Amino acid sequence: MAEKIDAYVNENRERFIEELKELMRFPSISAQSKHDGDTRACAEWLVAHFQKLGLEASLVDAGGQPIVRAQAKGKSAKRVMVYGHYDVQPEDPLDQWQTPPFEPTIKNGIIYGRGSTDDKGQVFAHVKAVESLLKTDGELPCEVLFLLEGEEESGGDALARYVRQAKDELKPDVVVVSDSTMYDEKTPAITYGLRGMAGFEFTVKGPDRDVHSGAYGGGIANPAMVVAQIMAACVAPDGKILIPHFYDDVAPLEPWEAESMAKLAFDDQAFVGELNVARPHGEAGFGTLERIWMRPTFEINGIYGGYTAEGAKTIIPASATVKVSARLVPHQDPSRIAKLIAEHIRSVCPDTVRLEMSDFAMCPPVLFDVNDPTFRAAQEALRQGFGAESVFIRCGGSIPVVSTFVEQLGCPVLLMGLGLDSDGPHSPNEHFSLDSFIKGTKAAAHLLRTI
Amino acid sequence: MAEKIDAYVNENRERFIEELKELMRFPSISAQSKHDGDTRACAEWLVAHFQKLGLEASLVDAGGQPIVRAQAKGKSAKRVMVYGHYDVQPEDPLDQWQTPPFEPTIKNGIIYGRGSTDDKGQVFAHVKAVESLLKTDGELPCEVLFLLEGEEESGGDALARYVRQAKDELKPDVVVVSDSTMYDEKTPAITYGLRGMAGFEFTVKGPDRDVHSGAYGGGIANPAMVVAQIMAACVAPDGKILIPHFYDDVAPLEPWEAESMAKLAFDDQAFVGELNVARPHGEAGFGTLERIWMRPTFEINGIYGGYTAEGAKTIIPASATVKVSARLVPHQDPSRIAKLIAEHIRSVCPDTVRLEMSDFAMCPPVLFDVNDPTFRAAQEALRQGFGAESVFIRCGGSIPVVSTFVEQLGCPVLLMGLGLDSDGPHSPNEHFSLDSFIKGTKAAAHLLRTI
Repeated sequence: MAEKIDAYVNENRERFIEELKELMRFPSISAQSKHDGDTRACAEWLVAHFQKLGLEASLVDAGGQPIVRAQAKGKSAKRVMVYGHYDVQPEDPLDQWQTPPFEPTIKNGIIYGRGSTDDKGQVFAHVKAVESLLKTDGELPCEVLFLLEGEEESGGDALARYVRQAKDELKPDVVVVSDSTMYDEKTPAITYGLRGMAGFEFTVKGPDRDVHSGAYGGGIANPAMVVAQIMAACVAPDGKILIPHFYDDVAPLEPWEAESMAKLAFDDQAFVGELNVARPHGEAGFGTLERIWMRPTFEINGIYGGYTAEGAKTIIPASATVKVSARLVPHQDPSRIAKLIAEHIRSVCPDTVRLEMSDFAMCPPVLFDVNDPTFRAAQEALRQGFGAESVFIRCGGSIPVVSTFVEQLGCPVLLMGLGLDSDGPHSPNEHFSLDSFIKGTKAAAHLLRTI
Repeated sequence: MAEKIDAYVNENRERFIEELKELMRFPSISAQSKHDGDTRACAEWLVAHFQKLGLEASLVDAGGQPIVRAQAKGKSAKRVMVYGHYDVQPEDPLDQWQTPPFEPTIKNGIIYGRGSTDDKGQVFAHVKAVESLLKTDGELPCEVLFLLEGEEESGGDALARYVRQAKDELKPDVVVVSDSTMYDEKTPAITYGLRGMAGFEFTVKGPDRDVHSGAYGGGIANPAMVVAQIMAACVAPDGKILIPHFYDDVAPLEPWEAESMAKLAFDDQAFVGELNVARPHGEAGFGTLERIWMRPTFEINGIYGGYTAEGAKTIIPASATVKVSARLVPHQDPSRIAKLIAEHIRSVCPDTVRLEMSDFAMCPPVLFDVNDPTFRAAQEALRQGFGAESVFIRCGGSIPVVSTFVEQLGCPVLLMGLGLDSDGPHSPNEHFSLDSFIKGTKAAAHLLRTI
């Protein structure tokens, strides 16, 4: 049976890729309301595709962008829920793309385009896995339920709301998620931990208009300087976060994790080499991999204020804004961290300016028990699909809905990533290996048989 | 004679204003190369206008934007050179203008538009003063030479270059400049000191593209955070500039200056009230007026990096840029200060990022002896024009070319400002009082008779 499935995938490889290109052409940028129509069109394409494969499929309206739901019975009553997202990050900076972000382009076995690795390519591997099982065996080995959301990249909560509402009906035995990475291009991986997040933006307002820095310089506070001073009061040059009690609840590394990380022989120079960065940097006293996987961060995602065009303009800006996000690790509680950050920023912001802070977008970190049988079944499926041993890794990113699954559904969540960090998710020239797409499709099919 | 001049100005008030509107319609934004044509057209309009008044006028090409030169003989051989600039600041933020920046609009005796106060309105008062003298007396009381530059707002050096080249031919007995302010709307003023400037921008470069803050957060330096940390290492929250040796050469206040400032009874709340700012802020230990006039500053004029559009994007920015300028006071040397700033920034910038710094735009501070007879003659002219006693003030702004006059021409430079800081030069809704324009025209005419 395994051979028949692999053969079917191989025979249909070109068509699978053409269909993935169709899916990637939708600019389903959920953070930008001007793309709401494109986002919906992408969801409708998926529903039609599932229906063509024989699944019962529809759009679920839980507020915000629609959720794609598709379902098919199987030989066993075991229900595997596959989660993914069809929305994508904004494409900017557009001028840094070497191919159009929404016209998928293949070069040397790599498909380039926004959403290729995050998350359309990974989601579509599971769709094609279900097709392959249906076409080779006539029915699925177990019941499969797809829930594909359209707000992952914009911090929306439609999927979480739907899961909370429908949890008694959804009732999966396991949730499978492919929205993370392999360890490297040859080593598949199961992600047993994700960082959480607390993100927000704040604006420091000074004079009600930009004013002449000669006439007013020395007379009033400079909002851009205040923003810089606040940020510098949050993170020290040695990478330590200065917010009081920020690190209180960070879990120390377990011995097996330290051993496992040592075996992975993470290469600092290879990590930064591709980025044109001289050397890694982060919280003093920790290795690079530990900092990315198991330590929290506090990052500026964007900053702006005053005159930013050609030439100089000698003004004191009316305001300055910064977009910030902290990555959180077990057992940091996002609400508590948000409160600590807000309190700290308010305490260091002088009363010579006005501070406006947005609500925090929050997501708790998650950590799974790698001894769960689901994880062992996944190791076997990956071995079959990729012909290689998998490793257990953590991921520095956040998948907000995973913690909702953990809380609401009470079943194991299997994070079986098919991408690579170097694929450039969220960056220009995002891409995805077609080899990983095809092997991932096989692994996803085997998983439904072994789980 | 004085009465005849005043009567002529009063009779021709409406036409003078219409002509000023014509001059203000040119978007002569010297910092933006796309406006080079408009800048030149503005200069050509002025040449034609001077010629119509009977002056010998032409454009001088000294590289960069053209200089308007206009000249007329007079009864005495004394030569008064009038300096001003016809270029203007960029108009952005455009959405904050209540009237179009380049369509002058009059409301309640105030003319609104870019360049109204800085510097077209002030320059044009001198032009109309010359017209009034010629029309009432047939000839000028002394020789007048206008030099109006087109690069004041963009830090160009064509005028300075020309003055250095032509100094043996120019040879004025006095230079008159109206590009500063009155003390308040009822009190004309003579400015005896200007701050200098050292301005530049720098970019901190990290990864060669924006990268995912989950995958790379904690792994590499964040360029926007580094920029914030560098800025915070330049200015303390109490307003003190932290650059080593920055204050070394700052001249202390003279006793007469302290007395004179005390008499002016500067109102902190009135100063910030119109700006919607709670209270003044600046270097600890100094009063607001002293900080604006006699203390140096270090300001962020603009800052940008990473994702700045709608919503959130969880990235580490590839780079972040900041535009900075320091206002300097006697006897700070701009070259020395530039060197101190550059050294300090290089010393605090970590080697985990790449630092790119532009050349500094520099201008020395100036200070005049208020006992010079020229200053006393100007007090009389202002008394006649405005019907009020003038005061001696300093100005927090910089007029780069004034220090060139001081160095190259060796004659007194009279700064007779007609504007107000609250006119919003460099801001949206820049404006100029038509009453000041008319009284300033009279004062400028009387000045040529009394000087």
